[in-house]
Amino acid sequence: NDTFVPTEHPHRRFNPLTGEWILVSPHRAKRPWQGQVEPASEEKKSAYDANCYLCAGNTRINGEVNEQYRGTYVFDNDFAALKQDTPSYADSDPLFKVCAEQGVSRVICFSEDHSKTLPELSIAELEDVVRTWQQQCQDLGQKFASVQVFENKGAMMGCSNPHPHGQVWAQTQLPTLVQKKQNAQQEYLKNHNGNLLHDYVKRELEEQQRVVVSNDDWVVVVPYWAAWPFETLLLPRFKVQRMPELNETQIHNLADILKQITIRYDNLFNCSFPYSMGWHGAPFDGQDHPEWTLHASFFPPLLRSATVKKFMVGYEMMAEAQRDLTAEQAAERLRDVNATHYKELTK
Amino acid sequence: NDTFVPTEHPHRRFNPLTGEWILVSPHRAKRPWQGQVEPASEEKKSAYDANCYLCAGNTRINGEVNEQYRGTYVFDNDFAALKQDTPSYADSDPLFKVCAEQGVSRVICFSEDHSKTLPELSIAELEDVVRTWQQQCQDLGQKFASVQVFENKGAMMGCSNPHPHGQVWAQTQLPTLVQKKQNAQQEYLKNHNGNLLHDYVKRELEEQQRVVVSNDDWVVVVPYWAAWPFETLLLPRFKVQRMPELNETQIHNLADILKQITIRYDNLFNCSFPYSMGWHGAPFDGQDHPEWTLHASFFPPLLRSATVKKFMVGYEMMAEAQRDLTAEQAAERLRDVNATHYKELTK
Ligand SMILES: O=P(O)(O)O[C@H]1O[C@H](CO)[C@@H](O)[C@H](O)[C@H]1O
Ligand SMILES: O=P(O)(O)O[C@H]1O[C@H](CO)[C@@H](O)[C@H](O)[C@H]1O
Repeated sequence: NDTFVPTEHPHRRFNPLTGEWILVSPHRAKRPWQGQVEPASEEKKSAYDANCYLCAGNTRINGEVNEQYRGTYVFDNDFAALKQDTPSYADSDPLFKVCAEQGVSRVICFSEDHSKTLPELSIAELEDVVRTWQQQCQDLGQKFASVQVFENKGAMMGCSNPHPHGQVWAQTQLPTLVQKKQNAQQEYLKNHNGNLLHDYVKRELEEQQRVVVSNDDWVVVVPYWAAWPFETLLLPRFKVQRMPELNETQIHNLADILKQITIRYDNLFNCSFPYSMGWHGAPFDGQDHPEWTLHASFFPPLLRSATVKKFMVGYEMMAEAQRDLTAEQAAERLRDVNATHYKELTK
Repeated sequence: NDTFVPTEHPHRRFNPLTGEWILVSPHRAKRPWQGQVEPASEEKKSAYDANCYLCAGNTRINGEVNEQYRGTYVFDNDFAALKQDTPSYADSDPLFKVCAEQGVSRVICFSEDHSKTLPELSIAELEDVVRTWQQQCQDLGQKFASVQVFENKGAMMGCSNPHPHGQVWAQTQLPTLVQKKQNAQQEYLKNHNGNLLHDYVKRELEEQQRVVVSNDDWVVVVPYWAAWPFETLLLPRFKVQRMPELNETQIHNLADILKQITIRYDNLFNCSFPYSMGWHGAPFDGQDHPEWTLHASFFPPLLRSATVKKFMVGYEMMAEAQRDLTAEQAAERLRDVNATHYKELTK
């Protein structure tokens, strides 16, 4: 039998946004796991935790006191990786190239309720989160070309506090991955006279096999080139370059799709699903960027269960990302779970 | 005060092998850690474990029985990510680019002694490991352009068995990172009429501040562009493109330097130091590759202690790698530890 079958045979898929390949080894999903299992953390949380440095009214490590906020709350990271007042400096020696960087790191609390996560917030509360992201991009975009909105969720993802929150890091230079994506989209526009992700979303909607959820404005797919087992890509069905451009309906529908996808994630292994997610759009550099489409990525580490994750280690660090199930198989798994959150179902 | 000080101010450094930048935020090392701590695993191991599928004479999951080996032992991975007989297939659609891949994945046991790790092997035993790597490259290089030798060490690095072992994955196409490194070295040769890593090692030996250990043939540095907190780069002080080219003295000195660096790693936090390590050299494509220098990288996850690691998550996944101490500070820490393994000292 010498016909190539993508669900059986090892193959490489190409990520057109980064120019990187991913090794897909679907037959390998059958291997038993004898390695490290992660602690399952389903302790009940209360709406307020006196020891949480993100809860309203509490004192943070640096002595500052959080406001008695309701909804979202933003403050400068107490241990910011980027600072506004860094003196300029650069050396272009090809082997010791360096450049000082200016920027800001902020924390964005999604809700005053310590016990909640995104899928457990109401649509109105999620709209509030989206509007906060918009404001931060608008505000920081005045000063910095790059505004990176992201969320690390779960201890497994280096998140040091279970209070629902994300971050925004802004800086003057475009980070490596953003620059790569910009180059790829520019190249595509030049070669195909089209917008890369706009063309891509059309094809995915036609094919349907990698679509997980969608509504009038947005669609979530497991991208053809997914690296993490249940990685997804959240794409607009309309033309948009930057977060602040979204109108009321698009914000509402974004809140809806965020709730849909995060519910499905939690339902996959009946746990609060860990991930890192983040937004990419055109830089705030005062220029027109017809090549860009605003989009979000979810990178979740779990592979087999709430406690067994995929390790991106030896081969992945030295060669390229590797996965054990196809994007199509992952999309099917995510489509097959209940659309209602498991905590609602067991109430 | 407006002078740039690299140990105080956030800056970006450029990795000339990959074309990627790394954000360095040295002031951030002071932040307290309240997140996930890893299980400390210092259980005593015995030289033979009846339940270990890598120990001599034991039966593996697929029913095969390991030889009664002494020293190194190589066999095909029971759940190989790559297969030799994959039928050919390719589609060059820019948004759905795919290519079937042929290859082989093997496991390399470093020793029959279940209780040992690389720093605890003798120089003669380490020479045996190097010779096995050479043989595998020689053998697989007949059929495959890319031969990736690597080791995942420690449960934290997805290693599913504490028996000392590494792997070798060979394949017809060059993986993403190898291709990037080849392009960068070719570009450097063209522009500077020199070998990138050969020029680099000279500069590092002159400066000394990032050198951790060295002998007549090899030097280990924390590269200027290190991403992981205690990442190191093992470089030859002579011209060499591929593993099989090493002569007896160079093999001996490689065994020596491997012992030196892995001892220092274990001594940093008095634990069996987890890492992924791997070798890169010129592809086995029958062509001359004057741009290439054979080298190894160690990517260890630990940051503060045996149980607190660096998470490459949100910002790192969406933007670029970020570190909390400078390469120079990391090198100093590694130079400052004892050159004798802590288990030897406490005997
Ligand atoms: O082959 P192992 O040790 O079972 O598996 C480990 O190494 C592989 C190669 O780096 C990775 O793909 C796996 O995610 C990791 O768990
Ligand atoms: O800022 P946090 O949540 O304390 O830290 C977490 O997110 C950062 C940004 O992705 C990472 O650099 C850290 O390694 C991670 O632990």
